[in-house]
Amino acid sequence: MRVVVAPDSFKGSLSAAAVCAAVEEGVRRAAPAAEVVAVPMADGGEGTLDCFLRARAGAAVEVAATDPLGRPVKARYALSGDGTSAVVELAAASGLPLVEDVPPDPMSAATTGTGELIADAVRRGARDVLVCIGGSASTDGGAGLLRALGVRFLDAAGEELPPGGAALARLASVDDSGLPREVRDARFRVACDVTNPLVGPDGAAAVFGPQKGASPGQVAELDAALTVFADVLAEHGGVRVHDLPGAGAAGGTCGGLVAVLGAEPSGGAALVAEAVGLPAALAGADLVFTGEGRVDGQSAAGKVVSAVAALARDRGAPCVALAGGVAGPLDDLHALGLTAAFSLADGPRTLAELKADAAPLLAALAEQAVRLYLR
Amino acid sequence: MRVVVAPDSFKGSLSAAAVCAAVEEGVRRAAPAAEVVAVPMADGGEGTLDCFLRARAGAAVEVAATDPLGRPVKARYALSGDGTSAVVELAAASGLPLVEDVPPDPMSAATTGTGELIADAVRRGARDVLVCIGGSASTDGGAGLLRALGVRFLDAAGEELPPGGAALARLASVDDSGLPREVRDARFRVACDVTNPLVGPDGAAAVFGPQKGASPGQVAELDAALTVFADVLAEHGGVRVHDLPGAGAAGGTCGGLVAVLGAEPSGGAALVAEAVGLPAALAGADLVFTGEGRVDGQSAAGKVVSAVAALARDRGAPCVALAGGVAGPLDDLHALGLTAAFSLADGPRTLAELKADAAPLLAALAEQAVRLYLR
Repeated sequence: MRVVVAPDSFKGSLSAAAVCAAVEEGVRRAAPAAEVVAVPMADGGEGTLDCFLRARAGAAVEVAATDPLGRPVKARYALSGDGTSAVVELAAASGLPLVEDVPPDPMSAATTGTGELIADAVRRGARDVLVCIGGSASTDGGAGLLRALGVRFLDAAGEELPPGGAALARLASVDDSGLPREVRDARFRVACDVTNPLVGPDGAAAVFGPQKGASPGQVAELDAALTVFADVLAEHGGVRVHDLPGAGAAGGTCGGLVAVLGAEPSGGAALVAEAVGLPAALAGADLVFTGEGRVDGQSAAGKVVSAVAALARDRGAPCVALAGGVAGPLDDLHALGLTAAFSLADGPRTLAELKADAAPLLAALAEQAVRLYLR
Repeated sequence: MRVVVAPDSFKGSLSAAAVCAAVEEGVRRAAPAAEVVAVPMADGGEGTLDCFLRARAGAAVEVAATDPLGRPVKARYALSGDGTSAVVELAAASGLPLVEDVPPDPMSAATTGTGELIADAVRRGARDVLVCIGGSASTDGGAGLLRALGVRFLDAAGEELPPGGAALARLASVDDSGLPREVRDARFRVACDVTNPLVGPDGAAAVFGPQKGASPGQVAELDAALTVFADVLAEHGGVRVHDLPGAGAAGGTCGGLVAVLGAEPSGGAALVAEAVGLPAALAGADLVFTGEGRVDGQSAAGKVVSAVAALARDRGAPCVALAGGVAGPLDDLHALGLTAAFSLADGPRTLAELKADAAPLLAALAEQAVRLYLR
């Protein structure tokens, strides 16, 4: 019997690798001869780099980069052992927490640092780059990122614009002749778990601007600037991202990546699954375990449980979620391919108890689930 | 698919019938076409009469009987619809709570009333009588019960002894010529979940005497009296019950029933299972659910979960326990035939919350278990 264990971390309790270890112990109690394959997962947020590094025998690369307000910052990304793939988290060099020591500056904050990390990865040979976005300080449509890769954003006078979203209101043309061949050849995927369009009442400025410090007036200004940005990009490359679902993620970074680099946005967990080689690991699986701290009916696209369940179903393998908490109804998850979900709670317990005992409880639960699977 | 649901009650939360209803709802969500057979179970204690009445289309019969101290008491037993079988609970007419209004009298308390209930049942046609013992006020070796059926306990002068355990010290002979034919023809089974012998340091007087009010001196006196009782019974009928495991149950009532009526002692849940027709209901079952408030590795003989698991295994059906709480390791239960056990807890919850929400949580859990069974 081949059992694949592909859980998210249990936030505040167990890393994804620790969940794998506990589940594996339980599986072995019920089926000592089982082949157990551990594929720790993440959803594009916390823990994603670790999963990728573990799965791809990679190493973290530290780069001297630029923070959202143009200050120096050291940031890391993950490069696979064979050097062909990288995972870059936008939060590493362009995250809102990096600039919380100064008053917010939503108008000029930029994604430059993330572009510097990507440039470094591509320079080292990466041709498959997963960009995990979210938590940005900026609303620049990813212009800073693209500039760091070699794209120039020019005003009507042909002068390069300063960094930040506000300046995009003066954008007149885009010059991507400076984009290196290796960047053009690379495949970019964007882990993106929101569906907001780039502009308008549900767009990047309106929805995410306020949490970055933008006043109502600044929100309107940034939304207008992003509209100009999208207009010019559409004219330049023929790709309209104004209303593209997800284009508004991370201050519009997703929209810029799609329009200029042909990036493919998708749910974070599905992209991480691919990056860590889960589809290949699932070949020949008889049973798949996934899990996360909490599974509920609203666990939609982008979450690890639904992504793993869908992949397992494609391969005809039953998929069981083990979670700290399970809140039904689970009809939507079942429809996605999840066979069943169980909570590791073994009776009346406080949250603190469940977190403290999560590993042995998971092992016990996995043992019981395998026993029922085998009957 | 045929699913049999045979749980104990969840004490303080759901009756066994309510557990069945909740599990059935969950099963139907996962397998709308399933045939679900509900067989509410009990372990010979609380709820046993209800389960029997439900399963055998029976009626409760109220009898004017005698309490442990010789006072009148109304007590009920259960008679099957066809009149052939009865379940008599010793606690109904001979329970310790019936005499808690007066100072304890462990020396003369007797099981007379239970015998009156049995006599009534046999008179009405019952030939299969399940006697559920436990909670007695007496230490009379069941002499009162047997006397009510027609047996005479005589001293050396041929005079009948007064009721109670102490008088048995003067027992010289037994006269069972007055036992009606229908009582001789009846099959008696005793639901008995302790393994104490009749006499000695682990016997009825030593272990259970004190909780009935016996002083150390009275314990010694009762133990000596029960020894005489057992000696005379052995001489009379050839059956030695001094050291028989379980003979000490209910003040030695089990010992007396075995020696005089050839009663068969066994674990309560196994006998209830037979009385409610569970073995027949399990024929052709694809999946069996059982359960109780709490399942743990110590759940040994006599408990509903282990009895149902053993019966299910004999029929080759997987058996899944659903419980309020599950405390491992469950190796002993697995060895008995239990496939798997799951707690209905869906995350951090207080005991009060779990009790209040037990029905919907059970339904949700049963649905998930069936989904995993069906994969």
